[in-house]
Amino acid sequence: MKDILKDFTINDEFFGRYEHLIKDTVIPYQEKVLKDEIPNVEKSHAIENFRAAAQKIETGTCDGEFYGMVFQDSDVAKWLEAAAYSLAMFPDDELEKRCDDIIDLIGRAQHKDGYLNTYFTVKEPEKRWTNLQEAHELYCAGHMMEAAVAYAKSTGKTKLLDIMCRMADHIYTHFIEEGAEGYSGHPEVELALMRMYRYTNNAHYLELATHFVNTRGVDSDYFIKESKKRDWKVWGNDASDKEYTQAHLPVREQTKAVGHAVRAVYLYTGMADVAAKTKDESLVNACKTLWDNITECRMYVTGAIGSAYEGEAFTKDNHLPNDTAYAETCASVGLIFFARKMFELDKNSKYADTIERALYNCVLAGMELDGTKFFYVNPLEVIPGISGEAKTHPHTLPQRPNWFACACCPPNVARLLSSIGKYAWSEEGNTLYSNLFIGGTLKLSEKQGKVRVETNYPYEGRVEYIFEPSDRKIDMSLAIRIPYWSESTSIQLNGKKAEYVVKDGYAYITNTFITNDKVTVEFDMSVKRIFARSNISDDSGKVAISSGPLVYCLEGMDNEGDVLGLRVKKDAVTSVKEYDKDILDGIVPLTIEGYRIRKSQSLYSLERPKADACYLTFIPYYAWGNRGLNEMRVWIPEME
Amino acid sequence: MKDILKDFTINDEFFGRYEHLIKDTVIPYQEKVLKDEIPNVEKSHAIENFRAAAQKIETGTCDGEFYGMVFQDSDVAKWLEAAAYSLAMFPDDELEKRCDDIIDLIGRAQHKDGYLNTYFTVKEPEKRWTNLQEAHELYCAGHMMEAAVAYAKSTGKTKLLDIMCRMADHIYTHFIEEGAEGYSGHPEVELALMRMYRYTNNAHYLELATHFVNTRGVDSDYFIKESKKRDWKVWGNDASDKEYTQAHLPVREQTKAVGHAVRAVYLYTGMADVAAKTKDESLVNACKTLWDNITECRMYVTGAIGSAYEGEAFTKDNHLPNDTAYAETCASVGLIFFARKMFELDKNSKYADTIERALYNCVLAGMELDGTKFFYVNPLEVIPGISGEAKTHPHTLPQRPNWFACACCPPNVARLLSSIGKYAWSEEGNTLYSNLFIGGTLKLSEKQGKVRVETNYPYEGRVEYIFEPSDRKIDMSLAIRIPYWSESTSIQLNGKKAEYVVKDGYAYITNTFITNDKVTVEFDMSVKRIFARSNISDDSGKVAISSGPLVYCLEGMDNEGDVLGLRVKKDAVTSVKEYDKDILDGIVPLTIEGYRIRKSQSLYSLERPKADACYLTFIPYYAWGNRGLNEMRVWIPEME
Repeated sequence: MKDILKDFTINDEFFGRYEHLIKDTVIPYQEKVLKDEIPNVEKSHAIENFRAAAQKIETGTCDGEFYGMVFQDSDVAKWLEAAAYSLAMFPDDELEKRCDDIIDLIGRAQHKDGYLNTYFTVKEPEKRWTNLQEAHELYCAGHMMEAAVAYAKSTGKTKLLDIMCRMADHIYTHFIEEGAEGYSGHPEVELALMRMYRYTNNAHYLELATHFVNTRGVDSDYFIKESKKRDWKVWGNDASDKEYTQAHLPVREQTKAVGHAVRAVYLYTGMADVAAKTKDESLVNACKTLWDNITECRMYVTGAIGSAYEGEAFTKDNHLPNDTAYAETCASVGLIFFARKMFELDKNSKYADTIERALYNCVLAGMELDGTKFFYVNPLEVIPGISGEAKTHPHTLPQRPNWFACACCPPNVARLLSSIGKYAWSEEGNTLYSNLFIGGTLKLSEKQGKVRVETNYPYEGRVEYIFEPSDRKIDMSLAIRIPYWSESTSIQLNGKKAEYVVKDGYAYITNTFITNDKVTVEFDMSVKRIFARSNISDDSGKVAISSGPLVYCLEGMDNEGDVLGLRVKKDAVTSVKEYDKDILDGIVPLTIEGYRIRKSQSLYSLERPKADACYLTFIPYYAWGNRGLNEMRVWIPEME
Repeated sequence: MKDILKDFTINDEFFGRYEHLIKDTVIPYQEKVLKDEIPNVEKSHAIENFRAAAQKIETGTCDGEFYGMVFQDSDVAKWLEAAAYSLAMFPDDELEKRCDDIIDLIGRAQHKDGYLNTYFTVKEPEKRWTNLQEAHELYCAGHMMEAAVAYAKSTGKTKLLDIMCRMADHIYTHFIEEGAEGYSGHPEVELALMRMYRYTNNAHYLELATHFVNTRGVDSDYFIKESKKRDWKVWGNDASDKEYTQAHLPVREQTKAVGHAVRAVYLYTGMADVAAKTKDESLVNACKTLWDNITECRMYVTGAIGSAYEGEAFTKDNHLPNDTAYAETCASVGLIFFARKMFELDKNSKYADTIERALYNCVLAGMELDGTKFFYVNPLEVIPGISGEAKTHPHTLPQRPNWFACACCPPNVARLLSSIGKYAWSEEGNTLYSNLFIGGTLKLSEKQGKVRVETNYPYEGRVEYIFEPSDRKIDMSLAIRIPYWSESTSIQLNGKKAEYVVKDGYAYITNTFITNDKVTVEFDMSVKRIFARSNISDDSGKVAISSGPLVYCLEGMDNEGDVLGLRVKKDAVTSVKEYDKDILDGIVPLTIEGYRIRKSQSLYSLERPKADACYLTFIPYYAWGNRGLNEMRVWIPEME
């Protein structure tokens, strides 16, 4: 399957804004953070760590010390990956020059044997590979491999790729040739090695990725034994919490998504990618089982995952608390990675449905509309005075903070949004899958021509595909995802009902398309009520409101300061649904009939509280928290 | 105010069962636990600790070691207090002999200077009074003082009282005469010293109680300084968490109930008792403010308090999660203590309303109906598979375990239930307050005669007071609490409407009562819906069901295994409400119209799930969890 990167030129009101934001604000801002150039923001020191490591390698000693998280290197890697994608869309010599400089520095921080990790080089040179459980060596390597592949594809420059091939070879020597035991406490290298393999065709990388997948959890005591052998720790994480690292069972026997949610979905992404290549049925089945467990029992309606602050983790089936959710932005980014790999295994629309759910809701909510502030944690309910304040809610901040000591989410959002074409499109043989609906122009492979998309999605349901074949005609199938929420969808070819076959949620239009042929799709963008399964305690008696892919929420700001006292009228009609470009960078707010419960004096009363009819104003969840401190709620009780 | 103890003879179906259970099962069982005589139960060693301490004092050395919590001594104290109350009701020479033996042993474990604490005597003899933050010395002393007063009142024997007077004198010397700084990390000694003072009239004890109340939080860094001075710890609790120990502000400036909930209400009880004696208005006001904060913003409908497992603590106003509540049994016992002292300050029915709420719901639920198993934690919703299993729910066990390493709650329930007369009645001058409605006979003070109560409360609303004055007539007021839930109450004197004045929730019937005069009260026991204030997120759109003082719940057991899918029909009528002696030791189950939501396949659906009309069977909350593992829920969504 082709990796869409330079071939899709975005021309889209909704995502165009994000692409420019990433290019103009997020990438420059994060670069300055990595270089410690932003005052009053948590120091990163990530570039300085590379400088110190380079100096140490070149001179045997260094002035500076390592600073930051043990995985600080990965912030540079994720930023470079995002920058690479941005360069693919918006060539920028100065940015490319600064990236090249950083890559040069990274090269200087690499040991002769290929080893690369500033924490160990600067701080613990004797302790390489002795703390796979906590020390994130393979994780950092994985992220830099992803950056290397992206940068090579985008710029054609292979210096970082060469560096990371040497590191991958070093890892191969250590774990395969020398037979070192173990696997990474934080999965990531598996999926990264698959990207390296797919780009370089070096079979060692496939072998190594498969090795890490296959050995995981087979000796489920590995981390316990490892922790007993060493006399040092990073945080002193409990090695006996095997589920936290998904090391409790061999991966093929894992049936429930458990432990640290980001680790989990990164692992499953690697598993799915290995399975897609090796066609290993048992691995394919494990991936499908884990996918179903997440999406049928452990995922929020916003596409968020990870119900608990404790361990930033999945908890149990059907446990989806709204106000104490961990719901990490990175975890939903990882879920999108996993979904994309599952799509390669199984052309079912449910995977891109989930990509869309997670992207348009949890992931976008992770970033302030101006691109400078980020949420780690994306709760579905926020109550000032409790959220971020009660001991039970240290993590659910009601407003996005400036920067984090652990800065994993911001560059993860940046690299996802700046490579959105990969998730929007997929070409397989002569079938073009349209998974996300984003305006722009896609170059088909082998110079067959272009397909142009025009749309105002997600605020309008019309999507037009205009064909521009190189040879004036092209035989192909356009497979359009019919989102699960679109209860009536019309598809026309040049103004007449198109002929198509629906299979697994895709409408396949197979045709000889000629220049300017136009496929017009109209999705059902009417306002919907979403009902959670009745065994989800936290949503019982409540509904969520959506339109298209967007889940909506109530903010106090638009509702006289009160959200907890509001009820949606059962079978209410939506009275206003109009695009307003002046609110929250352009949204469609919804006005829906409801009630406001009068607040009683006493905590408990025997008298039914009075309810006054009122109108509720909903905004898209992704835009919440951009106008100061206030209540927010996604799931709203219904009332007749 | 007279302390009712031996003067009330219970003859009551509901509480009679409990009094016998405490006497026949709980007290003997707990005695065996304290003596390590129950196999397969967490070893207590509490009596052995006293034996070791006695041996050490007598010989300078000991064979055994200290075992258990640093406050293990208090388990013996609370048991002795419960035994004392039981002996007052049910004289029992053998039990009294065994108590005397334990008291002899306690006496032998006391140092010549009066100091008594087996942890320090056996384990840390050099470290007395160096860790007030964690080491519970004053707390253990307080509990033993309470036992001493109870035992003296009940048996007339003063040996334990003498022991504890020497300990109190020792504390007085240390903190007052020698001017040692500090106060107890776990309040308790304050209220205990007040009991000692009220029984002995030794002004030093009032002075000492007042001292501990007045110094608390004045130097709010005291525990931080103390922890820096010492080189040892019990658990290493964070001394800078000042709210945990209610040491963040001088007590008169505290306006919110914060920190460890048991500590908080024990402190407030001591504060209220000091205030009642000293008439210190600023202290009275602080108590009232804290009372209102708890009961209007931080209390569950079951009378449970403490919303968070983290720190076993209060959290923030209006934060009352049902499934993750800490809601410790001991905290509700402490709330009852606090309420009783507030009643002394302010003859308002809201205090006894809260005693009743906490007693009939949270506290009774703390004990298995057979008296052998206990809950620490009393959640308002339990979901097998999540409760007690998810990392977020380690504390909310769905069934009562056998015994706890930290055995604070069982003896606390025992001492409360075996002294229930104290909470039922209060005599002030010639006014007799009837606060709880329990059948039995009360001897009036100064040999004025008796009042007999006949009732089947809480399952019937009729309460009869029959007067038996010694001199055939008596001038007095009977002040009957009109519970907040009784929306229509009739009061008759000898079959005719009685004349009475209602003030602050009490009906005062002032009369010259003659022999066999009968006051008959009929409370409104109809089934009620309780609505939480609209800003309580976890209860929004839901109702709780009650009848009289009893809050009801749904258990899966009675409802086809399903509770989360059930809805109460708005304005449904109760179709069955009949006492059934064969269920759960005799309850009135309620059958109420409702709906069962069909469980959908998918986690989220756009289609409104079908709802089937059905009958819901409710049982009193106090009886939940007695029939094996199943779902339980107090707050149920309403549906039209």
